[in-house]
Amino acid sequence: MSRPIQATIFTQNLSHNLAQVKKLTKARPTWAVVKANAYGHGLQAAYAGFAQSEGLALLDLHDAQLLREMGWKGKILLLEGIFTTDDLENCLRLDCDMVVHHASQLILIESWIKLLSPSKHEQVSQKIACWLKLNSGMNRLGFKSAQYVMAYQVLFGLGLTVNHLTHFANADTDHSLPTVSEQWQVFEHCTQFLEGFRSAANSAAILRHANTHADWTRPGIMLYGASPSGLWDDIAGYDLKPAMQLSSAIISIQDLEPGQTVGYGGNFTATQMIRIGVIACGYADGYPRSAPLGTPVWVGNNNSDHGCIVPVIGRVSMDMLTVDLSHAAFAEVGCPVELWGAKVPIDQVAKPAGTVGYELMCALAARVPVRVASN
Amino acid sequence: MSRPIQATIFTQNLSHNLAQVKKLTKARPTWAVVKANAYGHGLQAAYAGFAQSEGLALLDLHDAQLLREMGWKGKILLLEGIFTTDDLENCLRLDCDMVVHHASQLILIESWIKLLSPSKHEQVSQKIACWLKLNSGMNRLGFKSAQYVMAYQVLFGLGLTVNHLTHFANADTDHSLPTVSEQWQVFEHCTQFLEGFRSAANSAAILRHANTHADWTRPGIMLYGASPSGLWDDIAGYDLKPAMQLSSAIISIQDLEPGQTVGYGGNFTATQMIRIGVIACGYADGYPRSAPLGTPVWVGNNNSDHGCIVPVIGRVSMDMLTVDLSHAAFAEVGCPVELWGAKVPIDQVAKPAGTVGYELMCALAARVPVRVASN
Repeated sequence: MSRPIQATIFTQNLSHNLAQVKKLTKARPTWAVVKANAYGHGLQAAYAGFAQSEGLALLDLHDAQLLREMGWKGKILLLEGIFTTDDLENCLRLDCDMVVHHASQLILIESWIKLLSPSKHEQVSQKIACWLKLNSGMNRLGFKSAQYVMAYQVLFGLGLTVNHLTHFANADTDHSLPTVSEQWQVFEHCTQFLEGFRSAANSAAILRHANTHADWTRPGIMLYGASPSGLWDDIAGYDLKPAMQLSSAIISIQDLEPGQTVGYGGNFTATQMIRIGVIACGYADGYPRSAPLGTPVWVGNNNSDHGCIVPVIGRVSMDMLTVDLSHAAFAEVGCPVELWGAKVPIDQVAKPAGTVGYELMCALAARVPVRVASN
Repeated sequence: MSRPIQATIFTQNLSHNLAQVKKLTKARPTWAVVKANAYGHGLQAAYAGFAQSEGLALLDLHDAQLLREMGWKGKILLLEGIFTTDDLENCLRLDCDMVVHHASQLILIESWIKLLSPSKHEQVSQKIACWLKLNSGMNRLGFKSAQYVMAYQVLFGLGLTVNHLTHFANADTDHSLPTVSEQWQVFEHCTQFLEGFRSAANSAAILRHANTHADWTRPGIMLYGASPSGLWDDIAGYDLKPAMQLSSAIISIQDLEPGQTVGYGGNFTATQMIRIGVIACGYADGYPRSAPLGTPVWVGNNNSDHGCIVPVIGRVSMDMLTVDLSHAAFAEVGCPVELWGAKVPIDQVAKPAGTVGYELMCALAARVPVRVASN
């Protein structure tokens, strides 16, 4: 009610993007990454859109619980694993696979299992599937090579299923270290004589490094129709479809005389008579405050399907932003606008704002009403 | 459950900051601004913290409804007014004052009232309190001077209570146009012969422009203990207390050799052996992805109350960030951290990240559990 802002999630586009992943990876099993509330798209939409995925990967057991309640029968992977003994018990109850990335988790698992009776031990250990994480060069989570085999042996010795996982720091670029090739070599070397499935490829590696697709892929950002590198052009040829549309409407129009300024800080000054539109969308809705002059916004005509791209002017404020309507003579109060979606790729908003589509999707504010649509 | 991240809202600090406003404004009535989910603090906390405010100002009728259900008996102001006839009826039902900033709203109110029977008209119009908004130079919402008196007469002629409101573009700085003084003159000139209360001063004007305090003030950011200008030093002398703490914990520690990099893009390279901590907080929690090398994070000792400030290194990722622990030898997995709060003013995170505390507060993600505490 009241403000006209709305997000629409197109679940068929989620499904379409997953199908593109399957094409690129010769139908390998996928962990569709749905952490951060499915990158802001909502778990309900992810549940519907990723029905054809073998697994969903996330962080919070609470999300795993919600997915099971919705009826999700596929696999679930906890990407940061467990933090407490309670987590371990909930992980078992919810039938989740878990990443093991640190010695403190090894100790927690080992000591918990050793308290079980022998018969219970056997029964439980068969149910636990770990994905041991190798720090192959990103230096965030994971065991270094020197500790990896030892960690493997601890878990294997407890009778658990142990798989292998690593994460690339630079799959979207060839200009930073460590390279995918370096990390992949470390991963191959470390895991070559060990049993278990392997998973390494994120979206960028799915698109650019087919040799790393391994047993399970882990697509994230590409499932939502945005670019791993932050540049829309990098994925424009892959037939990926934006799954989130952020829309609103013009709520006021002002005519500016030359010399007049707009908004906080007065950082836009009119050099001629211009007509500006005020849109009910601001940074408290998730639109980036850092979006500079010229960031594209699509404005539609109330009486037809036509519209055009107009530039942001002035500073984005908490609840509003302003655009130059000089070249949109049709525009009036009530006209629909698209902040991002099929007409304005989210990357083309993120890039000038100095960030990536990932951050904008995740930052969609709770106050924005979300409609889930099946196209 | 699972991830250790948490936000804590201290309602006594909200009350304390409101009391500071009252001191500065000689106990003038306040519209405590609680839009954007009370700048990310939550309406429940605002309801408790701002019990001594005469009114609460917000955007969404849904929020007004929630506040009435909580038991809020004071005034409520709709800062963008109504968008539809339904809004108008809900506004009356919820006993809200409303801003009127555009001709389309005038038309909506006028045509709705004229459909009422004469007796109903009189009864209803006495209940409607408008705050007519003057565009005194910000060029966002509001009537220009030339239309203002006409708009006033329309509303007054319908028998409604009409008050006056404007908003400053540059109350936090003396270096941009239009100045507060210019806008204030326009406002005074336009409203001097009209009945009704006046409201102009936002936080920055409350702190810096006592001549604009008028009848009702509209404090926002200062109530939450952050700076209108984005610079903590600008408010450090006013005894305002941060009301939101964002805390988490270290979930992994890595030792880096010289030449090794951290995180995506590998944009931090160790020049000597260093020990880094991985913290369960990323941009999908609301921490800014743009936070550069050196952004402060407080790390505490598990076994005492001591701790120290350490610098962010590497790029903030979706669920994690990394810090240099070289000067925090005590730090281990599980140690508490404060991302912002009493130890790390939110402005000191926002500033290096190229934004303001407002944006960070509002961007606190729905996935972060919030605890409301009364200090």
